[in-house]
Amino acid sequence: DFIYSLENDIKPSLGMNDEALSKFIERGIINWGPTRELVEKGLMFVKQARSPETSSRLCLLLEGAPTAGTSALAAYLAKNSDFPFIKVINSREMVGFMESSKCFRINKIFDDAYRSELSCIFMNDLEHLMGYSPIGPRYQSLVLDAMYSLLSSSPPSGRKLLVICTTKRRSVLAELGLLSAFTAVIRVPYIAHQKDIRLVLEESQALSPEEIDAVMNHISHGSVFVGVKKLLGLLDSLRVMKGVDSHKRVAAFVNLLEDEGVFTPQL
Amino acid sequence: DFIYSLENDIKPSLGMNDEALSKFIERGIINWGPTRELVEKGLMFVKQARSPETSSRLCLLLEGAPTAGTSALAAYLAKNSDFPFIKVINSREMVGFMESSKCFRINKIFDDAYRSELSCIFMNDLEHLMGYSPIGPRYQSLVLDAMYSLLSSSPPSGRKLLVICTTKRRSVLAELGLLSAFTAVIRVPYIAHQKDIRLVLEESQALSPEEIDAVMNHISHGSVFVGVKKLLGLLDSLRVMKGVDSHKRVAAFVNLLEDEGVFTPQL
Amino acid sequence: DFIYSLENDIKPSLGMNDEALSKFIERGIINWGPTRELVEKGLMFVKQARSPETSSRLCLLLEGAPTAGTSALAAYLAKNSDFPFIKVINSREMVGFMESSKCFRINKIFDDAYRSELSCIFMNDLEHLMGYSPIGPRYQSLVLDAMYSLLSSSPPSGRKLLVICTTKRRSVLAELGLLSAFTAVIRVPYIAHQKDIRLVLEESQALSPEEIDAVMNHISHGSVFVGVKKLLGLLDSLRVMKGVDSHKRVAAFVNLLEDEGVFTPQL
Amino acid sequence: DFIYSLENDIKPSLGMNDEALSKFIERGIINWGPTRELVEKGLMFVKQARSPETSSRLCLLLEGAPTAGTSALAAYLAKNSDFPFIKVINSREMVGFMESSKCFRINKIFDDAYRSELSCIFMNDLEHLMGYSPIGPRYQSLVLDAMYSLLSSSPPSGRKLLVICTTKRRSVLAELGLLSAFTAVIRVPYIAHQKDIRLVLEESQALSPEEIDAVMNHISHGSVFVGVKKLLGLLDSLRVMKGVDSHKRVAAFVNLLEDEGVFTPQL
Amino acid sequence: DFIYSLENDIKPSLGMNDEALSKFIERGIINWGPTRELVEKGLMFVKQARSPETSSRLCLLLEGAPTAGTSALAAYLAKNSDFPFIKVINSREMVGFMESSKCFRINKIFDDAYRSELSCIFMNDLEHLMGYSPIGPRYQSLVLDAMYSLLSSSPPSGRKLLVICTTKRRSVLAELGLLSAFTAVIRVPYIAHQKDIRLVLEESQALSPEEIDAVMNHISHGSVFVGVKKLLGLLDSLRVMKGVDSHKRVAAFVNLLEDEGVFTPQL
Amino acid sequence: DFIYSLENDIKPSLGMNDEALSKFIERGIINWGPTRELVEKGLMFVKQARSPETSSRLCLLLEGAPTAGTSALAAYLAKNSDFPFIKVINSREMVGFMESSKCFRINKIFDDAYRSELSCIFMNDLEHLMGYSPIGPRYQSLVLDAMYSLLSSSPPSGRKLLVICTTKRRSVLAELGLLSAFTAVIRVPYIAHQKDIRLVLEESQALSPEEIDAVMNHISHGSVFVGVKKLLGLLDSLRVMKGVDSHKRVAAFVNLLEDEGVFTPQL
Ligand SMILES: Nc1ncnc2c1ncn2[C@@H]1O[C@H](COP(=O)(O)OP(=O)(O)OP(=O)(O)O)[C@@H](O)[C@H]1O
Ligand SMILES: Nc1ncnc2c1ncn2[C@@H]1O[C@H](COP(=O)(O)OP(=O)(O)OP(=O)(O)O)[C@@H](O)[C@H]1O
Ligand SMILES: Nc1ncnc2c1ncn2[C@@H]1O[C@H](COP(=O)(O)OP(=O)(O)OP(=O)(O)O)[C@@H](O)[C@H]1O
Ligand SMILES: Nc1ncnc2c1ncn2[C@@H]1O[C@H](COP(=O)(O)OP(=O)(O)OP(=O)(O)O)[C@@H](O)[C@H]1O
Ligand SMILES: Nc1ncnc2c1ncn2[C@@H]1O[C@H](COP(=O)(O)OP(=O)(O)OP(=O)(O)O)[C@@H](O)[C@H]1O
Ligand SMILES: Nc1ncnc2c1ncn2[C@@H]1O[C@H](COP(=O)(O)OP(=O)(O)OP(=O)(O)O)[C@@H](O)[C@H]1O
Ligand SMILES: [Mg+2]
Ligand SMILES: [Mg+2]
Ligand SMILES: [Mg+2]
Ligand SMILES: [Mg+2]
Ligand SMILES: [Mg+2]
Ligand SMILES: [Mg+2]
Repeated sequence: DFIYSLENDIKPSLGMNDEALSKFIERGIINWGPTRELVEKGLMFVKQARSPETSSRLCLLLEGAPTAGTSALAAYLAKNSDFPFIKVINSREMVGFMESSKCFRINKIFDDAYRSELSCIFMNDLEHLMGYSPIGPRYQSLVLDAMYSLLSSSPPSGRKLLVICTTKRRSVLAELGLLSAFTAVIRVPYIAHQKDIRLVLEESQALSPEEIDAVMNHISHGSVFVGVKKLLGLLDSLRVMKGVDSHKRVAAFVNLLEDEGVFTPQL
Repeated sequence: DFIYSLENDIKPSLGMNDEALSKFIERGIINWGPTRELVEKGLMFVKQARSPETSSRLCLLLEGAPTAGTSALAAYLAKNSDFPFIKVINSREMVGFMESSKCFRINKIFDDAYRSELSCIFMNDLEHLMGYSPIGPRYQSLVLDAMYSLLSSSPPSGRKLLVICTTKRRSVLAELGLLSAFTAVIRVPYIAHQKDIRLVLEESQALSPEEIDAVMNHISHGSVFVGVKKLLGLLDSLRVMKGVDSHKRVAAFVNLLEDEGVFTPQL
Repeated sequence: DFIYSLENDIKPSLGMNDEALSKFIERGIINWGPTRELVEKGLMFVKQARSPETSSRLCLLLEGAPTAGTSALAAYLAKNSDFPFIKVINSREMVGFMESSKCFRINKIFDDAYRSELSCIFMNDLEHLMGYSPIGPRYQSLVLDAMYSLLSSSPPSGRKLLVICTTKRRSVLAELGLLSAFTAVIRVPYIAHQKDIRLVLEESQALSPEEIDAVMNHISHGSVFVGVKKLLGLLDSLRVMKGVDSHKRVAAFVNLLEDEGVFTPQL
Repeated sequence: DFIYSLENDIKPSLGMNDEALSKFIERGIINWGPTRELVEKGLMFVKQARSPETSSRLCLLLEGAPTAGTSALAAYLAKNSDFPFIKVINSREMVGFMESSKCFRINKIFDDAYRSELSCIFMNDLEHLMGYSPIGPRYQSLVLDAMYSLLSSSPPSGRKLLVICTTKRRSVLAELGLLSAFTAVIRVPYIAHQKDIRLVLEESQALSPEEIDAVMNHISHGSVFVGVKKLLGLLDSLRVMKGVDSHKRVAAFVNLLEDEGVFTPQL
Repeated sequence: DFIYSLENDIKPSLGMNDEALSKFIERGIINWGPTRELVEKGLMFVKQARSPETSSRLCLLLEGAPTAGTSALAAYLAKNSDFPFIKVINSREMVGFMESSKCFRINKIFDDAYRSELSCIFMNDLEHLMGYSPIGPRYQSLVLDAMYSLLSSSPPSGRKLLVICTTKRRSVLAELGLLSAFTAVIRVPYIAHQKDIRLVLEESQALSPEEIDAVMNHISHGSVFVGVKKLLGLLDSLRVMKGVDSHKRVAAFVNLLEDEGVFTPQL
Repeated sequence: DFIYSLENDIKPSLGMNDEALSKFIERGIINWGPTRELVEKGLMFVKQARSPETSSRLCLLLEGAPTAGTSALAAYLAKNSDFPFIKVINSREMVGFMESSKCFRINKIFDDAYRSELSCIFMNDLEHLMGYSPIGPRYQSLVLDAMYSLLSSSPPSGRKLLVICTTKRRSVLAELGLLSAFTAVIRVPYIAHQKDIRLVLEESQALSPEEIDAVMNHISHGSVFVGVKKLLGLLDSLRVMKGVDSHKRVAAFVNLLEDEGVFTPQL
């Protein structure tokens, strides 16, 4: 079942970055394994951020391996925060920016946020925003400093700020000393159980129930390990094989799972 | 008991950075363990800085691990220095600045300070002001040089200057040759005794006296080690669990202490 | 036989970068060994990119050792995609550009592409576009960041984007974290079978059928390993030996194959 | 006894940097142990620099560990050189300068000096002027080059130049090839004898004669090692303990000496 | 005998860089050992570059140790290419250029070349043009990228381009990935045979026939190894010893050969 | 005896850098040990550079340890070259220059030189001109490139160029690939014989003949090793000890020799 699907999307906030958030949730939120629990934990922190009795600033980090679905879950939390001001900091809009322009842009967004009583800022792929790359390693010091300053300083008195970030490289953030700026860190896992695979196959509607049974049968002896985004991507290849014989489709898909390292047969 | 609490805040100085200092003391100063002793030692140096018989410049460094409460204590000393000129050097105001702009800004503040007979400058997270980051490692040479020059040179004759700084990385400052510019270094410790935990729980008013007894009972067999800021942060999560059953709240909080590594049960 | 030859070139798209693509396919596509299979696989992904049921963005990477024919195959796929907007990102046009100018140019092309409902962008030698060089190693961080942002973000809703790239250094892209941005990676192999050598010799028309038999006879005992571009290049040397005795031409060519490490005689 | 004390300061030169030099000698020159010998050796080189029979340029380096009193002694030599032109090159005035601005400023001072028949230039903390820092290590190449050029080239014919520098890192200057530009190097030692400690305590007038006897008694069994500036700094803490009982003052001071590593009791 | 001598120089092309090329061939081309063979091989590639049946772009690299005569041979090939457009890319004209100015200049020359139907570009010391230096190592990334782009892209259809380059560091070009952009690489060797030494001595006319016999006699037992440019340079020293006794001249020259490591006597 | 002394200085050239050259020869050229031989060898190369039969460009390098007297000897050769155009490239005039300004200045001087039929350029401390420093190591790539280009390219036809350089770090120039641009390298040694010490003492006139005998007597058992510049510098200290007793002067000087490592007594 779907926690959130694009079709019946009730816009919860009147902020201007609603479409930007929706882009991260292209395929909705399929309710496999730990999904609901993660969402509830996240929304608890959102609630804490709103409360007038708590600290004036709460920074939440979602971390997960590539394709785990981290960005979609984080965007979902932001969308459902019911905060009147929600802003997405988007690397796409800062392509080719020098470090200082980048800092001014990000700083500007925090300044804008401070004007609203309750405001939420969403930053996807924090290490990428800082230009981190493992060859070197390299990163943009000015942007790192800006992040540190912005995540560590309190909004003006009477204002409350919630910052939701994602990362693929938790250890890098730790080494850079950024991790201690976060109030909490939530880990987004890979799919590792057969029944979760079945759930995603069913929800995706790319295969018929019979085909799903056949696939599950094939992969029942062995282990699975895959991010939800990757699994949904592989299912896309099936969508263009419309006319093809059901048997062949199942075989093709099982091959794909094995080739891409998603399924490892038992020895 | 509270040494300092935001509610009965008597503004001691007429300088313009009073609000900036208060922001660092969001939760007041709870008088646990060594707090009063640290404050007295600090105020003794403040007194020495004022004295006309001593050197014209006194630089004080407070150092402590993340969340130890270093910034709050340092800000408290500055607030209570009774110096007519108090200025906070704030990294948040220099986001995206090039090294030289940063230097000019800091230099300007020292020049302004020299105009007052007695002046106090507060710099939080010195290594962060210099853009220090352990990957590389990197730091901004121009700012380091500026710091060194400013901390080492005497104000014009007839003027007295007190500089209060904080750091999370004492060893880095030592390696950079900055430590010898300080007249004294004060270490801010973590909470390591059960009775100090109890004191903070009581002062925070997030739990009822019975709940506190229950918590203390749970953690009595084992060791605790935590910064006061972190502990107060964890108590925030309880504040949004208002309606919840007292038993559950205690259990949730004890779990949290264990998960976050604050409490290590005895084997 | 030829899959594609410059002579009977039916321009499939009305986009403006048709000539730029043709330049990469100077010698047509000779249908040796796995060529047809590669082309079909590639066109399948092109079809998937067009499909309205799939993700709004599909990034395809062709990788192969130098002279394998990677660029020609990738250009062929782009040319045959039937996409109304096809744009080639050309390093030749950005010689001497600073990193940020390069980023703005590339960004501009993506922005233009977003205006068309279906658009295809072709980027040859991705690592070269990022100024990668193994001594250092060096690369242009801003361009890498731009690539990452552009390959990872979805076009505006209702638009579909296909990006076709080539690389000679798959492992570098993996290390830089760029590989996970691609939906699929296709490997272009070297020629390693005698019969494929014969096929290319025949199609190239640089040798007479008798000469080809003689060459194949010479190299029958041993192994061959060469990129199609290199092999066609060596045949060029024969074209200027027009008047020369057939025997000598064969000897010269066989020597060349051995000197250049294309042919290794059996011990 | 005092070789030089601020109170009976007879201004020896009419140059404009007299006050700048005096700032380095805040506490006068206490005549402990090797002080008079060092001063005489230094003044001998000053005399050599004035002599018309010798080389037209003489560069003198005073080196010592932090707080040894190096800057004060060097400033004293410059003040007493009786040169009509004396100029202090001050890092405080160049905070935030780019390398080239720094070079131009320093160069300008040498050019000005060349206009006077006899001129003396004082540069404190040479390695700091070059932005040297051990993490990296880093330094400003342009400034190093400028230093090398300026220390190595002769003034115009008929002019004589004396350059007095100090450093805390002699070995770094050696490694950078700067040491060979100096005509002579004078080492400023730490206080290592009980009787020199007594002398400084007496001259400082922070303790009564009885208190001094008590202190000396306490530290008689063990070794002492401290820079004169550090020792004078520790005495400052006593100055604010005016009303306090003599016994306590002695105990507090002895503790301080031990805590700060100045005094190591014999085992 | 001379393949080419400055005296009877018939200008073969009307291009404007004829004098620039001649400068590289100051001493003509003495026809020792492999010289004629190298020249013929080179001219064969020049012919291939002109042929309308071959690829539209041919890049030729001459590589040799310092003083091997690499530049002279490459310049000779360019001069004798009979191409209507010949352009020399000269590092002397780009002294002090920033990387991007250098790129624009080189790019401009390629653009100009594309306007002629047949054009030849001569680049001496490719690694030096890219600012390569082994300490670091360092090189100019932008120029390397430009080289790669320019050597790899085809001229507009209907145009043919020949690029002749030299290098002293083949392995560096290989490591930088530039070598695969060349159609062919020609190695220029050192003189290693006694008879080639004699030939050069004879052609140089710096020694009388009797002196040459004497020299050859001296060096007959042992090995020789020297670049032609170095050998001609050593002969220059003899030219200023005009009046000197023949015996002494021979002795002086033999000493020189041994001192400079050209001649190693047999043990 | 003196080969050259400032007093009877007959200006040999009308070029404008005569005074600049003289500054390097402050103390004349004392004719100790190998001096005359070095000067003759150098002047032979100067003669070769003038000869119309030889190569149009000759680059001479004098190398020696610090204080060996390298700069003075090189300047002496330039002064006595009788070239109508002589120009000194002086790092003092380029203090604080960015790399490219430096290059343009140096380039300009070569361009000016090309206008004269015979021209001589003097560059002292080549590695310093390139900003070389062993910590890093660092050097200015643009200047290195400029040096390489300028030393390697021939002047316009009909012009002859002589470049005289000095260095303290021959091995660095070799590593940077600059050494092969020089036609010849001349090594300037340290004084290592007692009789050469005596010669310099005599010529310097800082000691009376009796004092010299006494000094030589003292140092007769042991080894000496010192640059001529250093030795003359030590003698300067004696010049200000005018009134002092002869015995003390000798003792003081012998001590100095030993302290500075010039004289090592035999064990
Ligand atoms: N339970 C789920 N959790 C997360 N995403 C889900 C879930 N169910 C479906 N999805 C869909 O899966 C996709 C996850 O993509 P997302 O960009 O969040 O992955 P990611 O881990 O951020 O990948 P990347 O490595 O590219 O950053 C989205 O399209 C989302 O709509
Ligand atoms: N005794 C105390 N000492 C310090 N802080 C206290 C104390 N009692 C309560 N506090 C509160 O604890 C918080 C300490 O936060 P502070 O910013 O000083 O910590 P920090 O060690 O500087 O943390 P960071 O690692 O983020 O720099 C403040 O809100 C302060 O009001
Ligand atoms: N089956 C084929 N596959 C690819 N190229 C072919 C094939 N048959 C002929 N060719 C021709 O071979 C040449 C391949 O050149 P291409 O530039 O694609 O090689 P590459 O691997 O990209 O080389 P480089 O290492 O220079 O990037 C083209 O001229 C193309 O027309
Ligand atoms: N004999 C002495 N020698 C040097 N300084 C003395 C002496 N007696 C008293 N002083 C005083 O001691 C102080 C020495 O400070 P100074 O700045 O010279 O030390 P320093 O070694 O340069 O320290 P830093 O490590 O900060 O550079 C001055 O205030 C000076 O007046
Ligand atoms: N057979 C020959 N091959 C090459 N050069 C020759 C030959 N005979 C005579 N020469 C002369 O020798 C000189 C070779 O110099 P050239 O600059 O080519 O050497 P190089 O190897 O490029 O040296 P460098 O290491 O300086 O680059 C030229 O003056 C040329 O006229
Ligand atoms: N025979 C000699 N050779 C060289 N210099 C001599 C000789 N006799 C006397 N001198 C004097 O010795 C000094 C040598 O100084 P010079 O600057 O040449 O030394 P250097 O080796 O270049 O030193 P540095 O290490 O500072 O570069 C000059 O003043 C020169 O006049
Ligand atoms: Mg993501
Ligand atoms: Mg803090
Ligand atoms: Mg290619
Ligand atoms: Mg000092
Ligand atoms: Mg050459
Ligand atoms: Mg010198």
